[in-house]
Amino acid sequence: MTRDRATAFAPASVGNAGVGFDLLGFAIEGPGDTVTARRSDTPGVIIESITGTVTDLPRDPEKNTAGKAVQALLDVTRAQFGVVLSIEKGIPLGSGLGGSAASATAALMAANALLDAPLDVADLYPFALAGEAVASGSVHGDNVGPQLLGGLVLASPEHLFRIPVPAGLYAAVVHPDHVVETRAARTALRDGFPIETIVAQQTRLALFLSGCFQGDRNLIRAGLADVLVEPRRAQLIPGFGEVKQAALDHGALGASISGAGPSVFGWFENQAAARQAGAAMVAAFGRCGLPATALVSSLDAPGACLIENRIRPNHASRA
Amino acid sequence: MTRDRATAFAPASVGNAGVGFDLLGFAIEGPGDTVTARRSDTPGVIIESITGTVTDLPRDPEKNTAGKAVQALLDVTRAQFGVVLSIEKGIPLGSGLGGSAASATAALMAANALLDAPLDVADLYPFALAGEAVASGSVHGDNVGPQLLGGLVLASPEHLFRIPVPAGLYAAVVHPDHVVETRAARTALRDGFPIETIVAQQTRLALFLSGCFQGDRNLIRAGLADVLVEPRRAQLIPGFGEVKQAALDHGALGASISGAGPSVFGWFENQAAARQAGAAMVAAFGRCGLPATALVSSLDAPGACLIENRIRPNHASRA
Repeated sequence: MTRDRATAFAPASVGNAGVGFDLLGFAIEGPGDTVTARRSDTPGVIIESITGTVTDLPRDPEKNTAGKAVQALLDVTRAQFGVVLSIEKGIPLGSGLGGSAASATAALMAANALLDAPLDVADLYPFALAGEAVASGSVHGDNVGPQLLGGLVLASPEHLFRIPVPAGLYAAVVHPDHVVETRAARTALRDGFPIETIVAQQTRLALFLSGCFQGDRNLIRAGLADVLVEPRRAQLIPGFGEVKQAALDHGALGASISGAGPSVFGWFENQAAARQAGAAMVAAFGRCGLPATALVSSLDAPGACLIENRIRPNHASRA
Repeated sequence: MTRDRATAFAPASVGNAGVGFDLLGFAIEGPGDTVTARRSDTPGVIIESITGTVTDLPRDPEKNTAGKAVQALLDVTRAQFGVVLSIEKGIPLGSGLGGSAASATAALMAANALLDAPLDVADLYPFALAGEAVASGSVHGDNVGPQLLGGLVLASPEHLFRIPVPAGLYAAVVHPDHVVETRAARTALRDGFPIETIVAQQTRLALFLSGCFQGDRNLIRAGLADVLVEPRRAQLIPGFGEVKQAALDHGALGASISGAGPSVFGWFENQAAARQAGAAMVAAFGRCGLPATALVSSLDAPGACLIENRIRPNHASRA
C-alpha cells in the first residue's frame, strides 16, 4: 500500500501539566492543527501553504517545526521522494497550547503515511522533538508526546510513556487574548533553584504520579501544584492569581499554567465541574481586561490521527 | 491492656534512594536500633542508657532524636506518665544508614505500646519527623518513613506511602569506615541548581516511580540515577566513583549514595547478584584504602516492630 497524499490532525496539548516541567503533558479535545502531506519528485520538504489561526510562520523547512520534523523523518528513513506540506493552523501561536508542536506532529503523521513502511506512532517521537526544537530552542517532549499518544504522557528525552488517569476526570483550559513568548518565559527560569524548592516540587510530582497509577484522586490533589516554575512565570500572565483561584474555588484538583502560558488549566472531578470552572476562569480573566475562551476536555483525549487518505488506484483494495 | 515496658527494633534504611532526595527511602534487613521504653511516674522522657555501636550521644531528651520524638508523642497524646528509654545502637553514626532516625523510630514504637490507646504505626510519622529534625536540622522523612512502614516509601511532609517494588529485587549497601557529617553534606547543596538539571532529575524520578508501579525493571533502570545531588556529594566519599562503577559492572539497575553517605547502595535483579556486587563494592573501597562491609537486603524488608512486651498481670489475658 503506497499513498501519495495523506492528511493528519494533531490536538492541542497542555505542556508541563503543572507538576512535570518539560516532562509531563496531556492532550486536549477540540482545537488542533491539520496537515496534508503530498509525495513529490522534488527531494526534500516544501511548505506549500499555511492557513488558519496563524499564517505568518516561516516557510523555510529548516525554520518551520513541521518542515524540520518531516525532513528528519525523510533523512532517517532514506525516503526516495520529497514531501509537499499544506498546514492549517487551528491553535493560536504563543497560547501555551502546543501550537508549534502540533504542526510538527500532524505533519509527521501525514508524511509517515506516505512511507512504504510507515513507522509506529511512538517511533515518530525523535522527529517530532527535532521539529519542536526549532520553535522553542530546546528539546522537550511534553507537547509532542501527548499529541502523538493522547492522554497524559511522560516524555523522557528518549521515550514516551502513557500515564493512566482516573476515569471521568476532565480538564478546563482557558486561553486569554494575550501572548507570552516561549523564549521570554524561559528566561524567567535562568537563575538557579534552591534544593528546598526542588524537594517540594519532586514531592508533588511523586504524589501526582502515585495518584495517577493508583487511581487516587486525593493523591492527585495533593500533588497537582507547581511550586517550581509557576511562581516565576505567574507575573507574565495578567490575572493569573485570580484565574487560578477561580479554578480552585470550583473544586479543581489543581490548576497551573499551560506550557509557557498564558493559558491556564485545571483538573476537575467531572465534566460539569470543569465547565462551570471554565466559565469562572474566563470571567476572572475578563475582570483583568483580557477576553478569554474556555476549552473543556476529557483527560483521555485521543492523540494525532490520519483523517483522510488518497490511495494510489492500484492499491485501493487495501484502503 | 496496659504495658509498663516495651522493646522495639527499627531497621537501618537508605535515604534519598538516589532519585528521591529527602523524599524516597527504603528499609534494609539486618542492622538496626533497639529501644526499650519503660513507664515512669516522673513526667517527661529520661534517657537511662545508650549502648552499642555509638555511645557518646546526647542524653538530654531535647537533643536526642529518640527523646525528642517520644516527648512529642507524650505531649500530643497527653500521656499521664513519663517514659524511661534504654537505647541500644546497632547502626553506626554518620554512616548514611539512618542511624539517628532509627533510634527515634524504635523509641516511638516502644513508647507507643505503653499508651492506653496506641496509635497506628503510620500515625507515629509526625513524631518521628520531630525526632529526626534534632539530628539533621531539617524535616525529611526518607529514613523514618521506610523504618516505620518497611519497603520503599514515599515520604511527603504530611504522609507516608508505600511504593510497590517488583518482587525479587535486592539491594547491596556498602558501608566504609569513614564519616560524612550530615550537616556538611547539606552545605554541598547550598548553591542553586539549574532548571535543566532539575528536569533531568524529575525525569528520572518519574521513570523510576512508573517502573515501580508497573513492575517494569527497565523503567527502574532508566530512572535509578541521581544527577542532582550525587555530583555535588561524590567528592565527600573517597572512592565513590570506583564503588559505583563496581555496582554497575555487576548489573546494578542503579547505584548512588545512601543518605548523606558515605555508604553506597545499588539495586540488583536478585540476591546472588547483590551479593557478588556487594563484595566487588567492598573491594573497590578497599583499593581506596577504606575498609568496608556489605549488607544485602530484600527490597521488601520489614519496618519497625515490637520485639518484647511485658504486660501488667491484671491484663495478661489480652497478651
